[in-house]
Amino acid sequence: MLDAMLESIRHVSQGPVWQPMPDTVRESFRAAPLPVAGQELEALYQQFTATVQPYAVGNRHPRFMGWVHGGGTAQGMLAEMLAAGLNANLGGRDHAPVEVERMVIRWAADMFGFPPDATGVLVTGSSMANFIAILTATRNVANGQALRQQGVGGRKLVGYAGESAHGCVARAFDMAGLGEQALRRVPLDSAFRMDIAALTRMIAQDKAAGYEPFLVVGTAGTVDTGSIDPLNTLADIAAQEGLWFHMDGAFGALARLAPDLAPLLAGLERADSLAFDFHKWAQVPYDAGCVLVREPGRQAAAFAQSLAYLSREDRGLAAGAPWFCDLGPDLSRGFRALKVWFALAGFGTQKLGDVVTQSCTLARYLAQRVQDTPRLELLAPVTLNIVCFRVVVPDVDDLDWLNGELVKDMQVSGIVAPSTTRIGGVLAIRAALVNHRTTEVDINILLETLSSFLDVRLAQVQMIKAMEGVAGA
Amino acid sequence: MLDAMLESIRHVSQGPVWQPMPDTVRESFRAAPLPVAGQELEALYQQFTATVQPYAVGNRHPRFMGWVHGGGTAQGMLAEMLAAGLNANLGGRDHAPVEVERMVIRWAADMFGFPPDATGVLVTGSSMANFIAILTATRNVANGQALRQQGVGGRKLVGYAGESAHGCVARAFDMAGLGEQALRRVPLDSAFRMDIAALTRMIAQDKAAGYEPFLVVGTAGTVDTGSIDPLNTLADIAAQEGLWFHMDGAFGALARLAPDLAPLLAGLERADSLAFDFHKWAQVPYDAGCVLVREPGRQAAAFAQSLAYLSREDRGLAAGAPWFCDLGPDLSRGFRALKVWFALAGFGTQKLGDVVTQSCTLARYLAQRVQDTPRLELLAPVTLNIVCFRVVVPDVDDLDWLNGELVKDMQVSGIVAPSTTRIGGVLAIRAALVNHRTTEVDINILLETLSSFLDVRLAQVQMIKAMEGVAGA
Ligand SMILES: Cc1ncc(COP(=O)(O)O)c(C=O)c1O
Ligand SMILES: Cc1ncc(COP(=O)(O)O)c(C=O)c1O
Repeated sequence: MLDAMLESIRHVSQGPVWQPMPDTVRESFRAAPLPVAGQELEALYQQFTATVQPYAVGNRHPRFMGWVHGGGTAQGMLAEMLAAGLNANLGGRDHAPVEVERMVIRWAADMFGFPPDATGVLVTGSSMANFIAILTATRNVANGQALRQQGVGGRKLVGYAGESAHGCVARAFDMAGLGEQALRRVPLDSAFRMDIAALTRMIAQDKAAGYEPFLVVGTAGTVDTGSIDPLNTLADIAAQEGLWFHMDGAFGALARLAPDLAPLLAGLERADSLAFDFHKWAQVPYDAGCVLVREPGRQAAAFAQSLAYLSREDRGLAAGAPWFCDLGPDLSRGFRALKVWFALAGFGTQKLGDVVTQSCTLARYLAQRVQDTPRLELLAPVTLNIVCFRVVVPDVDDLDWLNGELVKDMQVSGIVAPSTTRIGGVLAIRAALVNHRTTEVDINILLETLSSFLDVRLAQVQMIKAMEGVAGA
Repeated sequence: MLDAMLESIRHVSQGPVWQPMPDTVRESFRAAPLPVAGQELEALYQQFTATVQPYAVGNRHPRFMGWVHGGGTAQGMLAEMLAAGLNANLGGRDHAPVEVERMVIRWAADMFGFPPDATGVLVTGSSMANFIAILTATRNVANGQALRQQGVGGRKLVGYAGESAHGCVARAFDMAGLGEQALRRVPLDSAFRMDIAALTRMIAQDKAAGYEPFLVVGTAGTVDTGSIDPLNTLADIAAQEGLWFHMDGAFGALARLAPDLAPLLAGLERADSLAFDFHKWAQVPYDAGCVLVREPGRQAAAFAQSLAYLSREDRGLAAGAPWFCDLGPDLSRGFRALKVWFALAGFGTQKLGDVVTQSCTLARYLAQRVQDTPRLELLAPVTLNIVCFRVVVPDVDDLDWLNGELVKDMQVSGIVAPSTTRIGGVLAIRAALVNHRTTEVDINILLETLSSFLDVRLAQVQMIKAMEGVAGA
């Protein structure tokens, strides 16, 4: 199994990026009854190789450009194997895996210019990391501790994030009981960054109306275009207005490891909390997100509980408090820290920064080629690794339809897999460059594939027009 | 690495359950600076074997009886290895790993008597599963959809759970913005089950006071004693009062797979939602929890969002909605479903039920031996796999101190690791029997070890008394 999987990783670029699952395969999952008797591992593994492995999502492939997915590494797989073999529960107690997690949290703090006593915890992803940070912010407002007992109902807490902020920030407000409306969405400037004048106006209006502004969320690497909010200005405003400054750096925060890009993130290190992922640009296998909170004690103020059967002792297994279950919603927790350790120590921050630089260089190359190509239009400036563009041709009225179909054509072909989003009201082809295996050749293939499918579509359009002409004559 | 880990699993019972980490090892983690340059995998692996593996939490060991931790399996490790190698992101999209998760969710529904179109999602653990279910309940009250936009503040929602309910239920109320006080804690009867008369009285009082009861949480397998709330009665009351009936079956729900124990859980299958773990009695490696929601549409009503860059398509990679990110807080999600598939299909429900039966048989054996032993006192009836007892001796006044020290003595010895909790105000020694490797011999060793340490402690007490006598004379 291990050898075969290592081989499959080695040769991943030779297969299709993605291929639709045959109906028989889908049916094999949908029809299988709950197994009463057991089955040999051998047989299970055969099912895996026949029905799962060929029809996976494709993000290991260098031409997966669909979403901000890491490519994974063989080394990461081995770390997960060791972690699963050890089967440690990282909720708490006194053991080495907990020390490993403390170490990687301290390293993460160092990576982003947070103080060494910052707290943090590994979680599934940035969605959860943002939720934990936002909840922590609510519990650290004036009298915030009372909210844990009494609920958020008596307060009119409001927060701010750009219109380009990820949906999980609004969802965090929803889940925390504040309601999505309590997250004010700040309009963007022409570079898709939070409009600061609008932000200060909105804060003033809310204060005048009796609301209690408590939080501003900046994004480093917005999901649609990769833009970066003006972080130092946000930090200044947060300080002036007494707001918690949270940063969503889901993928973009890692750009701080790339010397050429780090200046774009100046101000990130001033945040009160930061959410980011190791499973994106750091290529750690899914799932591995992280939240950091600058000041010690604040995260525990939001999450620590005392339970009789989890009492903390001076020696033995139940020593070593505080525990990670005091810093987030999870009690039982897997050993995510091992694969993060192996990635940070195995590659080093330098090599991880190189991957970021490489992705962003490729993005600029793609943007340039888009601008140099007559039938293509760049739809947003390229800050990091995301390129939004579209096909514009005179013969087709419904460009949204055309671009959408072209993306699906490319995905189904197995050659290359970009995604779509909407920019300024129009449908965009979106290429997110994250995979450490992607090269300039893959960018060229993207553009050639697009061009070929466009030719086919245009020929069809011509043919239909011609036939309509004949039928109409 | 793989061979060595398989060996270590095979021989796990020959080492200590747990051993304290030497200061040098702890220091090696605390002092290590953020790595700039990379390191060979070989070197990392050596660090792992020298500093992590020997000082893990010990739950793989047959004499780990401390907390409700699964023991893990070699097969589960291989599944995790394959999952990490594939590196799939299960948030959504159209690929086979998503179909595998749909399959195991359908299987889980079948296991617990839920309808086949019940929805569900794999999560880190029951803490998260309970949170998702409770949030789903709030979004399905009358006008519950408005809560997502407007927050929970305008309502006076209250829910009910036994005093023995797990702390994560209260934490879910906290995180959801309802406040812990909105979770009314119902007193217990003499068998540590929710007192139904008290429950109905509390509901009536709340209604009279203008509150809006919306939820009752039953527990199958309370964490302190393993008791099971009167589930059918709770289902009846929920139906009468129009409450959402949520079940926390973190570990206990799995007892439904054991024919001898399933009758104890009658009524579980009537719940509106269920939280439980695969990483406990099903021995799936950490982490793997699950939430099920009976009626289709309800879970999505609490979590589905529409985001431009995550639009759902008719074909290609972005087909196959609804996606798992519509059913919980996580967008990026690992392939937990593979290890769950391998466990359910590899062992079959029969063998998994046998493990449950075995643990509960051992618990009854331990309880009997406790009752037969002069210096020991059983502190709670044994319903499933948890035994709470203590040492009672005439020579020591502070029995809480004595029992606490004895537990730490046993843990530090590496021979056996029970935990503590408090029962009726006194400190209890708590043995939670979960590991598939535990046998009657291990129970005997627990009692012998306890007896030996007790003799040592008593001898010390005698000696001190004698010396005090001499010194006083
Ligand atoms: C800016 C941003 N924030 C948050 C998220 C959510 O992260 P995750 O998928 O790890 O939950 C993403 C995901 O792509 C993102 O790009
Ligand atoms: C009854 C009960 N509910 C919930 C939980 C929390 O589950 P997890 O640790 O998987 O988050 C536990 C943990 O032991 C439990 O016993």
